[in-house]
Amino acid sequence: MKTLNIPLKERSYPIYIGEGLLDKADLFSAHIGAGQKMVVISNEVVAPLYLEKTLASLAGLGDVETVVLPDGEHTKTLQTANEVFTEMLQVPCDRKTTVIALGGGVTGDLSGFCAACYQRGVPFIQVPTTLLSQVDSSVGGKTGVNHALGKNMVGAFYQPQAVIIDTATLDSLDDRQFSAGMAEVVKYGLLGDLPFLEWIEQNINAIMCRDKQAIAQIIERSCQAKADIVAKDEKEHGVRALLNLGHTFGHAIESAKGYGEWLHGEAVGLGMVMAADLSRRLGYIKPEDQQRVQSIVAAAKLPVDGVQGVSAEQLRELMAVDKKVADGKLRFILYKQIGQAIIVDDVPELQLMQTLSSFAHQ
Amino acid sequence: MKTLNIPLKERSYPIYIGEGLLDKADLFSAHIGAGQKMVVISNEVVAPLYLEKTLASLAGLGDVETVVLPDGEHTKTLQTANEVFTEMLQVPCDRKTTVIALGGGVTGDLSGFCAACYQRGVPFIQVPTTLLSQVDSSVGGKTGVNHALGKNMVGAFYQPQAVIIDTATLDSLDDRQFSAGMAEVVKYGLLGDLPFLEWIEQNINAIMCRDKQAIAQIIERSCQAKADIVAKDEKEHGVRALLNLGHTFGHAIESAKGYGEWLHGEAVGLGMVMAADLSRRLGYIKPEDQQRVQSIVAAAKLPVDGVQGVSAEQLRELMAVDKKVADGKLRFILYKQIGQAIIVDDVPELQLMQTLSSFAHQ
Repeated sequence: MKTLNIPLKERSYPIYIGEGLLDKADLFSAHIGAGQKMVVISNEVVAPLYLEKTLASLAGLGDVETVVLPDGEHTKTLQTANEVFTEMLQVPCDRKTTVIALGGGVTGDLSGFCAACYQRGVPFIQVPTTLLSQVDSSVGGKTGVNHALGKNMVGAFYQPQAVIIDTATLDSLDDRQFSAGMAEVVKYGLLGDLPFLEWIEQNINAIMCRDKQAIAQIIERSCQAKADIVAKDEKEHGVRALLNLGHTFGHAIESAKGYGEWLHGEAVGLGMVMAADLSRRLGYIKPEDQQRVQSIVAAAKLPVDGVQGVSAEQLRELMAVDKKVADGKLRFILYKQIGQAIIVDDVPELQLMQTLSSFAHQ
Repeated sequence: MKTLNIPLKERSYPIYIGEGLLDKADLFSAHIGAGQKMVVISNEVVAPLYLEKTLASLAGLGDVETVVLPDGEHTKTLQTANEVFTEMLQVPCDRKTTVIALGGGVTGDLSGFCAACYQRGVPFIQVPTTLLSQVDSSVGGKTGVNHALGKNMVGAFYQPQAVIIDTATLDSLDDRQFSAGMAEVVKYGLLGDLPFLEWIEQNINAIMCRDKQAIAQIIERSCQAKADIVAKDEKEHGVRALLNLGHTFGHAIESAKGYGEWLHGEAVGLGMVMAADLSRRLGYIKPEDQQRVQSIVAAAKLPVDGVQGVSAEQLRELMAVDKKVADGKLRFILYKQIGQAIIVDDVPELQLMQTLSSFAHQ
């Protein structure tokens, strides 16, 4: 087992990474007060696989309630959060009750938001079971739900007590979901860690074949990269914005297609390719750099050609409500060079529309 | 104008108190970035009186959107919050948009929650226009909405950039609302400031006749009392719980009668009398102390006799989901003596039911 630390003063917490951690009762008990209530929030896909194991590790700590939600991005709403509040109030849970998120990014984001808001905040533990949530969404305290008018528009910065990553849970992850997680892994290399990117490029076959050691490596290195950035800028006033590489385009794609049709990671994958296209048009990177981004995204079996049934204008409109808008200006994360992302908030409309038109196929 | 400060490190902020502050554009501009958008959230009662004045002070700072909600406790829901998010997304507001709450406690709590959650947090200014919100709810960062199963069960600790208290807005406050606010004023005296309590007792006629100087005095002293406690314990892990004097009973009353039939302050007023009854039964205070609590609450024209159409058992059940429950135990704020409240979490069921039976008239 590897333990990383997110240093955020009184909000610091550990990330445990290892095979079979769901069975380690002591990892849970170290972060849950004896005799306190617990609520495990999971979904219909994950619960049959891992709920029993989790409950076994929690047995003896206190009373446990379980909430099993439908699977999918469409459940990540204020309405579902309200249903969770209802179940928690019926128990009734108090201010010392620990919320445990068992599932992927949707479960973690929603559960974290519920933990942040239930009685103005209760303790929270992330147990991510997908690659995407293990390398990205479970770490760093971003919680929230979607709104009909935009993704993640309602939420809170709320740090967990601990993140428990059992890499064995990836054995049950289908290839499409695995690829979606790879988008965020590749992102860390592209935005600020050229040696890691090179390592991914060299080991992409082993990774995609789910080689255990390669997977342990990408999770550790991704969590460390995220931890370093979050420690510098918890609430995204500066450098944390770099983590949004591919996300301004990605969120617009997800929103245009309706949440769920494209997985978040798929949209981010194409978004990183679009960011490369725009960076090249603006003269930041060369055509061969753009090709390099496209190659690694394609090697992770993520879409690189574009999105069907959506117009450039439609994507442009959806971008206007993105959280990354500041002072009415769109904020893009682009490539200064491969392995070094930068924040650009004066992208000319002309090149932006050229990029959008190249990838939006109506 | 008087300026108090809430010292909370990077979350510190000023409370401005004075007559006619709504007209002071510079108070607003000091806390709103030039050219940033603003959203004023108000209600149907307050907006016709003070919205125009407020907008005049904001003119020239940037674009202002207004959201006017129905009046009353029943609007303080997650559903209304979602409607506010919709309006904000339609503008669209970004992460630098300032939310300005213009109204009483309901408006402030709801607006603060919206500010806390919109895009994971935007700047927020409180402009309380009722006595209750000026002396209590606008100060200290408690925001939230009600749930069908309990009051303020969903929310966030989220501090504003500033609190602007224009005492002239009390001129339009009806007597019932004024009395409701007096419950929280009296509370500060009862829980920890005997000299202030004595001052209130001596000046109760001037206060109830809305003598300007007396009112300025009670607002300043109440805000200072709240600021002192919040500075010591922002998130209610300890001493801040004392501010809940009268609230465990009060919330149960509000909940039993349906939000809005009893004003929050009325329920707290009776709650403080019930806390005195229970304190006397447990031997903490003498019958004459209980009488003193009852007298000052009655002098503020608040209910002291009890609540109709509710059973003791019903109140007891509603208390079980109160946020002040910890480890399954009810937590009461009782009187160690007049002017000194204490936290008691081992109240015997017998005396509790005796108190409830004395005040619940079915």
